[in-house]
Amino acid sequence: MPLAAYFNEIRKEVDNKLDHLVPKIETPPSRLHEAMRYSLFAGGKRLRPILAVASCEAVGGKRSTVTPFAAALEMIHTYTLIHDDLPALDNDDIRRGHPTSHVKFGESTAILAGDALLTLAFEILTGRRLFSETPSETLLDVAAMTAASIGSTGTIGGQVVDLEMEGAEPDIAVLEYIHTHKTGKLILASVHGGAALAGAEPDQLEALSEYGRNIGLAFQVVDDILDVEGDEKSLGKKAGADLAKSKVTYPSLMGVEDSRKLAARLIDRAIASLEILGADAVRLADLAKYVIARTF
Amino acid sequence: MPLAAYFNEIRKEVDNKLDHLVPKIETPPSRLHEAMRYSLFAGGKRLRPILAVASCEAVGGKRSTVTPFAAALEMIHTYTLIHDDLPALDNDDIRRGHPTSHVKFGESTAILAGDALLTLAFEILTGRRLFSETPSETLLDVAAMTAASIGSTGTIGGQVVDLEMEGAEPDIAVLEYIHTHKTGKLILASVHGGAALAGAEPDQLEALSEYGRNIGLAFQVVDDILDVEGDEKSLGKKAGADLAKSKVTYPSLMGVEDSRKLAARLIDRAIASLEILGADAVRLADLAKYVIARTF
Repeated sequence: MPLAAYFNEIRKEVDNKLDHLVPKIETPPSRLHEAMRYSLFAGGKRLRPILAVASCEAVGGKRSTVTPFAAALEMIHTYTLIHDDLPALDNDDIRRGHPTSHVKFGESTAILAGDALLTLAFEILTGRRLFSETPSETLLDVAAMTAASIGSTGTIGGQVVDLEMEGAEPDIAVLEYIHTHKTGKLILASVHGGAALAGAEPDQLEALSEYGRNIGLAFQVVDDILDVEGDEKSLGKKAGADLAKSKVTYPSLMGVEDSRKLAARLIDRAIASLEILGADAVRLADLAKYVIARTF
Repeated sequence: MPLAAYFNEIRKEVDNKLDHLVPKIETPPSRLHEAMRYSLFAGGKRLRPILAVASCEAVGGKRSTVTPFAAALEMIHTYTLIHDDLPALDNDDIRRGHPTSHVKFGESTAILAGDALLTLAFEILTGRRLFSETPSETLLDVAAMTAASIGSTGTIGGQVVDLEMEGAEPDIAVLEYIHTHKTGKLILASVHGGAALAGAEPDQLEALSEYGRNIGLAFQVVDDILDVEGDEKSLGKKAGADLAKSKVTYPSLMGVEDSRKLAARLIDRAIASLEILGADAVRLADLAKYVIARTF
Protein backbone atom coordinates (compact mmCIF):
# COMPACT_ATOMS: atom_id res chain seq x y z
CA MET A 1 0.00 0.00 0.00
CA PRO A 2 1.40 3.45 -0.88
CA LEU A 3 2.18 5.70 2.08
CA ALA A 4 -0.58 8.18 1.26
CA ALA A 5 -3.17 5.39 1.25
CA TYR A 6 -1.79 4.07 4.56
CA PHE A 7 -2.10 7.55 6.07
CA ASN A 8 -5.65 7.93 4.77
CA GLU A 9 -6.66 4.57 6.16
CA ILE A 10 -5.46 5.53 9.65
CA ARG A 11 -7.01 8.98 9.40
CA LYS A 12 -10.35 7.43 8.57
CA GLU A 13 -10.20 4.98 11.47
CA VAL A 14 -9.12 7.68 13.92
CA ASP A 15 -11.80 10.07 12.68
CA ASN A 16 -14.41 7.35 13.14
CA LYS A 17 -13.15 6.77 16.67
CA LEU A 18 -13.22 10.51 17.41
CA ASP A 19 -16.76 10.77 16.08
CA HIS A 20 -17.75 7.88 18.33
CA LEU A 21 -15.99 9.22 21.46
CA VAL A 22 -16.93 12.91 21.36
CA PRO A 23 -20.53 13.69 22.35
CA LYS A 24 -22.78 14.56 19.41
CA ILE A 25 -23.72 18.20 18.81
CA GLU A 26 -27.27 17.34 19.91
CA THR A 27 -26.00 16.46 23.41
CA PRO A 28 -26.29 19.50 25.69
CA PRO A 29 -24.58 21.84 25.96
CA SER A 30 -24.76 21.82 22.16
CA ARG A 31 -22.61 24.84 21.49
CA LEU A 32 -19.74 23.39 23.51
CA HIS A 33 -19.89 20.07 21.68
CA GLU A 34 -20.16 21.90 18.38
CA ALA A 35 -16.99 23.86 19.23
CA MET A 36 -15.13 20.69 20.28
CA ARG A 37 -16.06 18.96 17.02
CA TYR A 38 -15.39 22.03 14.87
CA SER A 39 -11.72 22.17 15.85
CA LEU A 40 -11.26 18.39 15.89
CA PHE A 41 -12.57 18.00 12.35
CA ALA A 42 -11.00 21.13 10.84
CA GLY A 43 -8.62 19.18 8.63
CA GLY A 44 -5.69 18.24 10.84
CA LYS A 45 -2.95 16.01 9.45
CA ARG A 46 -3.43 13.48 12.30
CA LEU A 47 0.36 13.20 12.65
CA ARG A 48 0.23 12.01 16.26
CA PRO A 49 -2.42 9.33 15.65
CA ILE A 50 -0.49 8.11 12.60
CA LEU A 51 2.70 7.90 14.66
CA ALA A 52 0.94 6.01 17.45
CA VAL A 53 -0.60 3.49 15.06
CA ALA A 54 2.59 3.01 13.04
CA SER A 55 4.56 2.56 16.26
CA CYS A 56 2.07 -0.02 17.54
CA GLU A 57 2.34 -1.92 14.25
CA ALA A 58 6.15 -1.62 14.28
CA VAL A 59 6.21 -3.88 17.35
CA GLY A 60 3.64 -6.29 15.94
CA GLY A 61 0.57 -4.83 17.68
CA LYS A 62 -2.98 -4.76 16.34
CA ARG A 63 -4.21 -1.34 15.24
CA SER A 64 -7.42 -1.60 17.28
CA THR A 65 -5.26 -1.75 20.43
CA VAL A 66 -4.30 1.89 20.04
CA THR A 67 -7.06 3.71 18.13
CA PRO A 68 -8.61 5.12 21.36
CA PHE A 69 -5.12 6.31 22.38
CA ALA A 70 -4.66 7.84 18.90
CA ALA A 71 -7.99 9.65 19.25
CA ALA A 72 -7.03 10.97 22.70
CA LEU A 73 -3.73 12.30 21.30
CA GLU A 74 -5.60 14.24 18.63
CA MET A 75 -7.94 15.69 21.27
CA ILE A 76 -4.92 16.81 23.28
CA HIS A 77 -3.23 18.30 20.22
CA THR A 78 -6.44 20.12 19.28
CA TYR A 79 -6.85 21.54 22.81
CA THR A 80 -3.31 22.96 22.64
CA LEU A 81 -4.10 24.60 19.28
CA ILE A 82 -7.36 26.15 20.52
CA HIS A 83 -5.68 27.63 23.60
CA ASP A 84 -2.53 28.71 21.69
CA ASP A 85 -4.68 30.61 19.19
CA LEU A 86 -6.46 32.65 21.90
CA PRO A 87 -6.07 36.45 21.83
CA ALA A 88 -4.08 36.36 25.09
CA LEU A 89 -1.61 33.88 23.59
CA ASP A 90 -0.70 33.76 19.88
CA ASN A 91 -3.82 35.67 18.81
CA ASP A 92 -4.34 33.74 15.57
CA ASP A 93 -7.56 34.20 13.61
CA ILE A 94 -6.98 31.47 11.03
CA ARG A 95 -5.95 27.86 11.54
CA ARG A 96 -5.90 25.19 8.83
CA GLY A 97 -7.68 27.67 6.54
CA HIS A 98 -10.64 28.16 8.89
CA PRO A 99 -11.52 30.76 11.55
CA THR A 100 -10.05 29.73 14.88
CA SER A 101 -12.32 28.59 17.70
CA HIS A 102 -12.52 31.91 19.55
CA VAL A 103 -13.30 33.77 16.30
CA LYS A 104 -16.09 31.34 15.47
CA PHE A 105 -17.54 30.65 18.95
CA GLY A 106 -16.24 33.43 21.19
CA GLU A 107 -13.43 33.35 23.69
CA SER A 108 -15.24 31.76 26.63
CA THR A 109 -16.47 28.81 24.56
CA ALA A 110 -13.01 28.37 23.02
CA ILE A 111 -11.35 28.22 26.43
CA LEU A 112 -13.92 25.73 27.72
CA ALA A 113 -13.88 23.63 24.53
CA GLY A 114 -10.10 23.27 24.95
CA ASP A 115 -10.53 22.34 28.61
CA ALA A 116 -13.20 19.80 27.68
CA LEU A 117 -11.06 18.16 24.97
CA LEU A 118 -8.15 17.77 27.39
CA THR A 119 -10.48 16.32 30.02
CA LEU A 120 -12.14 13.93 27.57
CA ALA A 121 -8.71 12.73 26.44
CA PHE A 122 -7.97 11.66 30.01
CA GLU A 123 -11.35 10.05 30.42
CA ILE A 124 -10.47 7.93 27.37
CA LEU A 125 -6.90 7.21 28.50
CA THR A 126 -8.25 5.80 31.76
CA GLY A 127 -11.16 3.91 30.19
CA ARG A 128 -10.38 0.25 30.82
CA ARG A 129 -13.13 -0.99 28.51
CA LEU A 130 -11.56 0.88 25.57
CA PHE A 131 -8.24 -0.90 26.11
CA SER A 132 -9.32 -4.46 26.81
CA GLU A 133 -6.12 -5.91 25.33
CA THR A 134 -3.78 -3.85 27.54
CA PRO A 135 -2.97 -4.65 31.21
CA SER A 136 -4.26 -1.98 33.62
CA GLU A 137 -0.72 -1.23 34.86
CA THR A 138 0.45 -0.48 31.31
CA LEU A 139 -2.57 1.72 30.64
CA LEU A 140 -1.92 3.71 33.83
CA ASP A 141 1.73 4.16 32.88
CA VAL A 142 0.89 5.35 29.36
CA ALA A 143 -1.72 7.78 30.71
CA ALA A 144 0.73 9.15 33.31
CA MET A 145 3.52 9.45 30.74
CA THR A 146 1.17 11.28 28.37
CA ALA A 147 0.08 13.68 31.13
CA ALA A 148 3.68 14.38 32.11
CA SER A 149 4.60 15.08 28.48
CA ILE A 150 1.98 17.82 28.12
CA GLY A 151 2.30 19.43 31.58
CA SER A 152 4.20 22.35 33.05
CA THR A 153 7.57 20.78 32.20
CA GLY A 154 6.32 19.53 28.82
CA THR A 155 4.07 21.09 26.17
CA ILE A 156 2.81 23.88 28.43
CA GLY A 157 6.34 24.69 29.61
CA GLY A 158 7.44 25.05 25.99
CA GLN A 159 4.50 27.32 25.24
CA VAL A 160 5.29 29.55 28.24
CA VAL A 161 8.92 29.96 27.21
CA ASP A 162 7.83 30.58 23.61
CA LEU A 163 5.57 33.42 24.77
CA GLU A 164 8.27 34.85 27.03
CA MET A 165 10.73 34.91 24.12
CA GLU A 166 8.54 36.87 21.70
CA GLY A 167 10.54 39.89 20.62
CA ALA A 168 13.62 38.62 22.49
CA GLU A 169 16.72 37.08 20.94
CA PRO A 170 16.94 33.49 22.12
CA ASP A 171 19.83 31.26 21.04
CA ILE A 172 19.65 27.79 19.54
CA ALA A 173 19.51 26.19 23.01
CA VAL A 174 16.38 28.12 23.96
CA LEU A 175 14.78 27.45 20.58
CA GLU A 176 15.48 23.75 21.01
CA TYR A 177 13.96 23.86 24.51
CA ILE A 178 10.82 25.45 23.10
CA HIS A 179 10.42 22.91 20.33
CA THR A 180 11.35 19.77 22.23
CA HIS A 181 8.80 20.78 24.86
CA LYS A 182 6.04 22.54 22.91
CA THR A 183 5.69 19.87 20.23
CA GLY A 184 8.44 17.28 20.80
CA LYS A 185 7.22 15.70 24.02
CA LEU A 186 3.72 14.88 22.77
CA ILE A 187 5.16 13.41 19.56
CA LEU A 188 7.50 11.29 21.67
CA ALA A 189 4.55 10.24 23.85
CA SER A 190 2.62 9.23 20.71
CA VAL A 191 5.41 6.95 19.49
CA HIS A 192 6.24 5.57 22.94
CA GLY A 193 2.63 5.09 24.04
CA GLY A 194 1.57 3.44 20.80
CA ALA A 195 4.24 0.78 21.24
CA ALA A 196 3.83 0.42 25.02
CA LEU A 197 0.09 -0.26 24.71
CA ALA A 198 0.93 -3.01 22.23
CA GLY A 199 3.27 -4.65 24.75
CA ALA A 200 6.63 -3.52 23.36
CA GLU A 201 9.86 -4.77 24.96
CA PRO A 202 12.15 -2.29 26.76
CA ASP A 203 14.77 -2.26 23.96
CA GLN A 204 12.04 -1.61 21.40
CA LEU A 205 10.69 1.25 23.50
CA GLU A 206 14.17 2.71 23.78
CA ALA A 207 14.70 2.57 20.01
CA LEU A 208 11.30 4.14 19.38
CA SER A 209 11.92 6.89 21.92
CA GLU A 210 15.10 7.79 20.03
CA TYR A 211 13.05 7.82 16.84
CA GLY A 212 10.34 9.94 18.49
CA ARG A 213 12.75 12.55 19.83
CA ASN A 214 14.44 12.99 16.46
CA ILE A 215 11.32 13.03 14.34
CA GLY A 216 9.65 15.47 16.73
CA LEU A 217 12.40 18.03 16.44
CA ALA A 218 12.80 17.41 12.69
CA PHE A 219 9.13 18.06 12.20
CA GLN A 220 9.42 21.42 13.91
CA VAL A 221 12.53 22.46 11.99
CA VAL A 222 10.69 21.58 8.76
CA ASP A 223 7.66 23.56 9.92
CA ASP A 224 9.92 26.58 10.49
CA ILE A 225 11.39 26.20 6.99
CA LEU A 226 7.92 25.93 5.48
CA ASP A 227 6.83 29.02 7.36
CA VAL A 228 9.55 30.98 5.57
CA GLU A 229 9.18 29.33 2.20
CA GLY A 230 5.81 27.67 2.05
CA ASP A 231 2.66 29.04 0.54
CA GLU A 232 -0.58 29.58 2.40
CA LYS A 233 -2.23 26.58 0.81
CA SER A 234 0.12 23.93 2.15
CA LEU A 235 0.21 25.45 5.62
CA GLY A 236 -3.38 26.61 6.03
CA LYS A 237 -2.03 29.75 7.63
CA LYS A 238 -0.23 32.80 6.41
CA ALA A 239 3.35 32.05 5.31
CA GLY A 240 5.79 34.23 7.19
CA ALA A 241 3.40 34.44 10.16
CA ASP A 242 6.19 33.65 12.63
CA LEU A 243 8.44 36.26 11.03
CA ALA A 244 5.68 38.88 11.22
CA LYS A 245 5.47 38.25 14.97
CA SER A 246 9.28 38.32 15.15
CA LYS A 247 9.29 34.78 16.51
CA VAL A 248 12.69 33.21 16.36
CA THR A 249 12.89 30.15 14.12
CA TYR A 250 15.62 27.80 12.92
CA PRO A 251 15.97 29.60 9.56
CA SER A 252 16.20 32.98 11.32
CA LEU A 253 19.00 31.67 13.57
CA MET A 254 20.99 29.45 11.19
CA GLY A 255 19.66 30.16 7.72
CA VAL A 256 17.48 27.98 5.50
CA GLU A 257 20.27 25.80 4.15
CA ASP A 258 21.69 24.84 7.53
CA SER A 259 18.16 24.27 8.83
CA ARG A 260 17.60 21.82 5.97
CA LYS A 261 20.84 20.04 6.85
CA LEU A 262 19.81 19.85 10.51
CA ALA A 263 16.43 18.38 9.55
CA ALA A 264 18.13 15.83 7.30
CA ARG A 265 20.51 14.84 10.10
CA LEU A 266 17.64 14.37 12.56
CA ILE A 267 15.74 12.25 10.04
CA ASP A 268 18.82 10.08 9.41
CA ARG A 269 19.15 9.51 13.13
CA ALA A 270 15.44 8.69 13.44
CA ILE A 271 15.66 6.10 10.67
CA ALA A 272 18.88 4.59 12.05
CA SER A 273 17.27 4.02 15.43
CA LEU A 274 14.61 1.80 13.82
CA GLU A 275 17.14 -0.86 12.84
CA ILE A 276 16.43 -3.32 15.69
CA LEU A 277 12.72 -3.31 14.80
CA GLY A 278 13.21 -4.87 11.39
CA ALA A 279 10.71 -4.85 8.54
CA ASP A 280 7.67 -3.99 10.70
CA ALA A 281 9.06 -0.48 11.15
CA VAL A 282 9.01 0.36 7.43
CA ARG A 283 6.05 2.72 7.85
CA LEU A 284 7.87 4.73 10.51
CA ALA A 285 10.88 5.01 8.21
CA ASP A 286 8.64 6.09 5.32
CA LEU A 287 7.03 8.66 7.58
CA ALA A 288 10.43 10.09 8.47
CA LYS A 289 11.32 10.40 4.78
CA TYR A 290 7.98 12.06 4.13
CA VAL A 291 8.67 14.70 6.79
CA ILE A 292 11.94 15.72 5.17
CA ALA A 293 10.45 15.59 1.66
CA ARG A 294 8.08 18.41 2.63
CA THR A 295 10.99 20.86 2.61
CA PHE A 296 11.80 20.35 -1.09
CA MET B 1 -11.16 15.87 68.25
CA PRO B 2 -13.36 18.91 67.49
CA LEU B 3 -14.45 19.27 63.85
CA ALA B 4 -12.33 22.39 63.27
CA ALA B 5 -9.20 20.56 64.43
CA TYR B 6 -10.07 17.60 62.21
CA PHE B 7 -10.45 19.95 59.23
CA ASN B 8 -7.14 21.64 60.00
CA GLU B 9 -5.34 18.33 60.29
CA ILE B 10 -6.54 17.27 56.84
CA ARG B 11 -5.79 20.70 55.36
CA LYS B 12 -2.25 20.46 56.63
CA GLU B 13 -1.70 16.99 55.22
CA VAL B 14 -3.20 17.92 51.87
CA ASP B 15 -1.20 21.12 51.69
CA ASN B 16 1.98 19.15 52.42
CA LYS B 17 1.06 16.74 49.64
CA LEU B 18 0.35 19.61 47.24
CA ASP B 19 3.67 21.23 48.10
CA HIS B 20 5.38 17.93 47.39
CA LEU B 21 3.56 17.21 44.12
CA VAL B 22 3.65 20.63 42.43
CA PRO B 23 7.04 21.64 40.98
CA LYS B 24 8.87 24.25 43.07
CA ILE B 25 8.97 27.85 41.84
CA GLU B 26 12.67 27.38 41.06
CA THR B 27 11.80 24.70 38.47
CA PRO B 28 11.58 26.31 35.01
CA PRO B 29 9.40 27.81 33.77
CA SER B 30 9.37 29.60 37.14
CA ARG B 31 6.57 32.02 36.42
CA LEU B 32 4.20 29.22 35.48
CA HIS B 33 4.97 27.26 38.63
CA GLU B 34 4.66 30.43 40.67
CA ALA B 35 1.19 31.01 39.19
CA MET B 36 0.13 27.41 39.84
CA ARG B 37 1.25 27.66 43.48
CA TYR B 38 -0.20 31.13 43.96
CA SER B 39 -3.75 30.00 43.23
CA LEU B 40 -3.37 26.63 44.99
CA PHE B 41 -2.20 28.24 48.23
CA ALA B 42 -4.49 31.28 48.21
CA GLY B 43 -6.51 30.11 51.21
CA GLY B 44 -9.03 27.65 49.84
CA LYS B 45 -11.29 25.78 52.26
CA ARG B 46 -10.12 22.40 50.89
CA LEU B 47 -13.71 21.16 50.93
CA ARG B 48 -13.14 18.48 48.27
CA PRO B 49 -10.01 17.05 49.93
CA ILE B 50 -11.79 17.01 53.30
CA LEU B 51 -14.75 15.18 51.76
CA ALA B 52 -12.46 12.64 50.08
CA VAL B 53 -10.53 11.92 53.28
CA ALA B 54 -13.66 11.76 55.46
CA SER B 55 -15.30 9.45 52.94
CA CYS B 56 -12.24 7.17 52.89
CA GLU B 57 -12.26 7.04 56.68
CA ALA B 58 -16.04 6.44 56.72
CA VAL B 59 -15.44 3.06 55.07
CA GLY B 60 -12.49 2.21 57.31
CA GLY B 61 -9.72 3.32 54.92
CA LYS B 62 -6.35 4.79 55.88
CA ARG B 63 -5.95 8.49 55.18
CA SER B 64 -2.65 8.02 53.33
CA THR B 65 -4.55 5.94 50.73
CA VAL B 66 -6.31 9.04 49.43
CA THR B 67 -4.13 12.09 50.11
CA PRO B 68 -2.76 12.14 46.51
CA PHE B 69 -6.35 11.92 45.25
CA ALA B 70 -7.32 14.75 47.63
CA ALA B 71 -4.46 16.86 46.29
CA ALA B 72 -5.50 16.17 42.69
CA LEU B 73 -9.07 17.25 43.49
CA GLU B 74 -7.82 20.57 44.83
CA MET B 75 -5.72 21.08 41.69
CA ILE B 76 -8.80 20.45 39.56
CA HIS B 77 -10.93 22.78 41.67
CA THR B 78 -8.26 25.49 41.47
CA TYR B 79 -7.97 25.14 37.67
CA THR B 80 -11.74 25.67 37.35
CA LEU B 81 -11.53 28.80 39.51
CA ILE B 82 -8.61 30.26 37.50
CA HIS B 83 -10.41 29.72 34.19
CA ASP B 84 -13.81 30.86 35.54
CA ASP B 85 -12.26 34.12 36.74
CA LEU B 86 -10.83 35.00 33.30
CA PRO B 87 -12.04 38.19 31.60
CA ALA B 88 -13.79 36.16 28.88
CA LEU B 89 -15.73 34.20 31.50
CA ASP B 90 -16.79 35.63 34.87
CA ASN B 91 -14.22 38.45 34.77
CA ASP B 92 -13.48 38.42 38.49
CA ASP B 93 -10.55 40.44 39.85
CA ILE B 94 -10.65 39.18 43.42
CA ARG B 95 -10.85 35.63 44.73
CA ARG B 96 -10.45 34.59 48.36
CA GLY B 97 -9.40 38.17 49.13
CA HIS B 98 -6.49 38.14 46.66
CA PRO B 99 -6.04 39.33 43.05
CA THR B 100 -7.08 36.56 40.66
CA SER B 101 -4.46 34.77 38.58
CA HIS B 102 -4.88 36.79 35.38
CA VAL B 103 -4.72 40.06 37.35
CA LYS B 104 -1.52 38.98 39.06
CA PHE B 105 0.23 37.09 36.23
CA GLY B 106 -1.52 38.14 33.03
CA GLU B 107 -4.09 36.29 31.01
CA SER B 108 -1.82 33.95 29.06
CA THR B 109 -0.09 32.66 32.20
CA ALA B 110 -3.45 32.25 33.95
CA ILE B 111 -4.85 30.15 31.09
CA LEU B 112 -1.74 27.99 30.98
CA ALA B 113 -1.50 27.67 34.78
CA GLY B 114 -5.07 26.35 34.78
CA ASP B 115 -4.25 23.91 31.97
CA ALA B 116 -1.14 22.76 33.83
CA LEU B 117 -3.02 22.15 37.10
CA LEU B 118 -5.63 20.05 35.31
CA THR B 119 -2.90 18.10 33.54
CA LEU B 120 -0.91 17.55 36.73
CA ALA B 121 -4.04 16.31 38.46
CA PHE B 122 -4.33 13.56 35.84
CA GLU B 123 -0.66 12.72 36.07
CA ILE B 124 -1.24 12.15 39.79
CA LEU B 125 -4.49 10.23 39.32
CA THR B 126 -2.68 7.78 37.03
CA GLY B 127 0.47 7.53 39.15
CA ARG B 128 0.57 3.93 40.35
CA ARG B 129 3.38 4.54 42.82
CA LEU B 130 1.29 7.16 44.61
CA PHE B 131 -1.53 4.68 45.15
CA SER B 132 0.33 1.53 46.14
CA GLU B 133 -2.56 0.28 48.31
CA THR B 134 -5.15 0.52 45.52
CA PRO B 135 -5.58 -2.06 42.70
CA SER B 136 -4.77 -0.63 39.25
CA GLU B 137 -8.30 -1.33 38.01
CA THR B 138 -9.80 0.71 40.85
CA LEU B 139 -7.38 3.56 40.25
CA LEU B 140 -8.28 3.65 36.54
CA ASP B 141 -11.98 3.67 37.37
CA VAL B 142 -11.61 6.52 39.87
CA ALA B 143 -9.53 8.54 37.40
CA ALA B 144 -12.07 7.96 34.60
CA MET B 145 -15.00 8.81 36.88
CA THR B 146 -13.24 12.00 38.00
CA ALA B 147 -12.55 12.99 34.38
CA ALA B 148 -16.17 12.36 33.39
CA SER B 149 -17.40 14.44 36.32
CA ILE B 150 -15.48 17.55 35.21
CA GLY B 151 -15.93 17.24 31.43
CA SER B 152 -18.35 18.64 28.87
CA THR B 153 -21.34 16.97 30.54
CA GLY B 154 -20.02 17.73 34.04
CA THR B 155 -18.33 20.80 35.52
CA ILE B 156 -17.59 22.42 32.15
CA GLY B 157 -21.13 21.77 30.93
CA GLY B 158 -22.48 23.54 34.01
CA GLN B 159 -20.15 26.48 33.45
CA VAL B 160 -21.25 26.81 29.81
CA VAL B 161 -24.94 26.86 30.75
CA ASP B 162 -24.20 29.31 33.57
CA LEU B 163 -22.55 31.69 31.09
CA GLU B 164 -25.39 31.28 28.58
CA MET B 165 -27.92 32.15 31.27
CA GLU B 166 -26.36 35.44 32.37
CA GLY B 167 -29.02 38.10 32.05
CA ALA B 168 -31.63 35.47 31.16
CA GLU B 169 -34.39 34.19 33.44
CA PRO B 170 -33.79 30.51 34.07
CA ASP B 171 -36.17 28.51 36.21
CA ILE B 172 -35.34 26.26 39.14
CA ALA B 173 -34.67 23.30 36.81
CA VAL B 174 -31.98 25.19 34.89
CA LEU B 175 -30.46 26.54 38.09
CA GLU B 176 -30.32 23.02 39.49
CA TYR B 177 -28.68 21.81 36.25
CA ILE B 178 -26.02 24.51 36.57
CA HIS B 179 -25.24 23.72 40.19
CA THR B 180 -25.35 19.94 40.03
CA HIS B 181 -22.94 20.12 37.09
CA LYS B 182 -20.75 23.13 37.84
CA THR B 183 -19.96 22.18 41.42
CA GLY B 184 -22.04 19.10 42.29
CA LYS B 185 -20.34 16.51 40.11
CA LEU B 186 -16.82 17.13 41.40
CA ILE B 187 -18.07 17.07 44.99
CA LEU B 188 -19.78 13.76 44.25
CA ALA B 189 -16.55 12.48 42.67
CA SER B 190 -14.63 13.51 45.80
CA VAL B 191 -16.91 11.51 48.08
CA HIS B 192 -17.25 8.55 45.73
CA GLY B 193 -13.55 8.39 44.78
CA GLY B 194 -12.33 8.73 48.36
CA ALA B 195 -14.33 5.67 49.35
CA ALA B 196 -13.65 3.68 46.17
CA LEU B 197 -9.87 4.06 46.55
CA ALA B 198 -10.23 2.69 50.07
CA GLY B 199 -12.01 -0.42 48.75
CA ALA B 200 -15.62 0.48 49.63
CA GLU B 201 -18.39 -2.05 48.98
CA PRO B 202 -21.08 -1.26 46.36
CA ASP B 203 -23.77 -0.51 48.98
CA GLN B 204 -21.39 1.85 50.78
CA LEU B 205 -20.60 3.62 47.51
CA GLU B 206 -24.29 3.97 46.79
CA ALA B 207 -24.98 5.50 50.20
CA LEU B 208 -22.03 7.87 49.83
CA SER B 209 -23.13 8.91 46.34
CA GLU B 210 -26.51 9.88 47.76
CA TYR B 211 -24.68 11.85 50.46
CA GLY B 212 -22.41 13.48 47.84
CA ARG B 213 -25.29 14.55 45.60
CA ASN B 214 -27.20 16.15 48.45
CA ILE B 215 -24.27 17.85 50.14
CA GLY B 216 -23.04 19.19 46.81
CA LEU B 217 -26.29 20.92 46.02
CA ALA B 218 -26.76 22.06 49.64
CA PHE B 219 -23.34 23.64 49.56
CA GLN B 220 -24.28 25.66 46.50
CA VAL B 221 -27.64 26.77 47.90
CA VAL B 222 -25.82 27.92 51.05
CA ASP B 223 -23.24 29.74 48.93
CA ASP B 224 -26.06 31.56 47.16
CA ILE B 225 -27.61 32.55 50.50
CA LEU B 226 -24.24 33.79 51.78
CA ASP B 227 -23.76 35.79 48.61
CA VAL B 228 -26.92 37.71 49.44
CA GLU B 229 -26.39 37.94 53.18
CA GLY B 230 -22.74 37.30 53.91
CA ASP B 231 -20.06 39.86 54.43
CA GLU B 232 -16.90 40.18 52.35
CA LYS B 233 -14.73 38.72 55.07
CA SER B 234 -16.35 35.31 55.23
CA LEU B 235 -16.60 34.99 51.45
CA GLY B 236 -13.34 36.58 50.36
CA LYS B 237 -15.27 38.25 47.57
CA LYS B 238 -17.78 41.04 47.35
CA ALA B 239 -21.14 40.11 48.84
CA GLY B 240 -23.90 40.61 46.30
CA ALA B 241 -21.47 39.91 43.45
CA ASP B 242 -23.89 37.47 41.81
CA LEU B 243 -26.72 39.95 42.14
CA ALA B 244 -24.60 42.71 40.58
CA LYS B 245 -24.05 40.47 37.54
CA SER B 246 -27.76 39.61 37.56
CA LYS B 247 -26.92 35.95 37.98
CA VAL B 248 -29.89 33.91 39.03
CA THR B 249 -29.55 32.30 42.45
CA TYR B 250 -31.75 30.24 44.75
CA PRO B 251 -32.66 33.29 46.91
CA SER B 252 -33.54 35.31 43.79
CA LEU B 253 -35.84 32.53 42.56
CA MET B 254 -37.44 31.31 45.80
CA GLY B 255 -36.49 33.83 48.48
CA VAL B 256 -34.01 33.47 51.32
CA GLU B 257 -36.33 31.62 53.69
CA ASP B 258 -37.32 28.91 51.23
CA SER B 259 -33.68 28.59 50.16
CA ARG B 260 -32.75 27.93 53.78
CA LYS B 261 -35.48 25.31 54.03
CA LEU B 262 -34.25 23.64 50.84
CA ALA B 263 -30.68 23.56 52.17
CA ALA B 264 -31.89 22.05 55.45
CA ARG B 265 -33.86 19.39 53.56
CA LEU B 266 -30.83 18.45 51.46
CA ILE B 267 -28.65 18.22 54.55
CA ASP B 268 -31.20 15.99 56.30
CA ARG B 269 -31.20 13.69 53.29
CA ALA B 270 -27.40 13.65 53.19
CA ILE B 271 -27.20 12.66 56.87
CA ALA B 272 -29.93 10.04 56.53
CA SER B 273 -28.05 8.33 53.70
CA LEU B 274 -25.06 7.74 56.02
CA GLU B 275 -27.00 5.38 58.26
CA ILE B 276 -25.61 2.09 56.86
CA LEU B 277 -22.05 3.32 57.42
CA GLY B 278 -22.36 3.48 61.20
CA ALA B 279 -20.08 5.37 63.56
CA ASP B 280 -17.20 5.75 61.08
CA ALA B 281 -19.30 8.25 59.13
CA VAL B 282 -19.62 10.72 62.01
CA ARG B 283 -17.24 13.20 60.36
CA LEU B 284 -19.31 13.27 57.19
CA ALA B 285 -22.42 13.92 59.27
CA ASP B 286 -20.63 16.68 61.18
CA LEU B 287 -19.50 18.19 57.90
CA ALA B 288 -23.09 18.27 56.64
CA LYS B 289 -24.21 20.04 59.79
CA TYR B 290 -21.35 22.50 59.41
CA VAL B 291 -22.48 23.39 55.89
CA ILE B 292 -25.97 24.30 57.04
CA ALA B 293 -24.67 26.13 60.11
CA ARG B 294 -22.92 28.62 57.83
CA THR B 295 -26.30 30.10 56.88
CA PHE B 296 -27.14 31.22 60.42
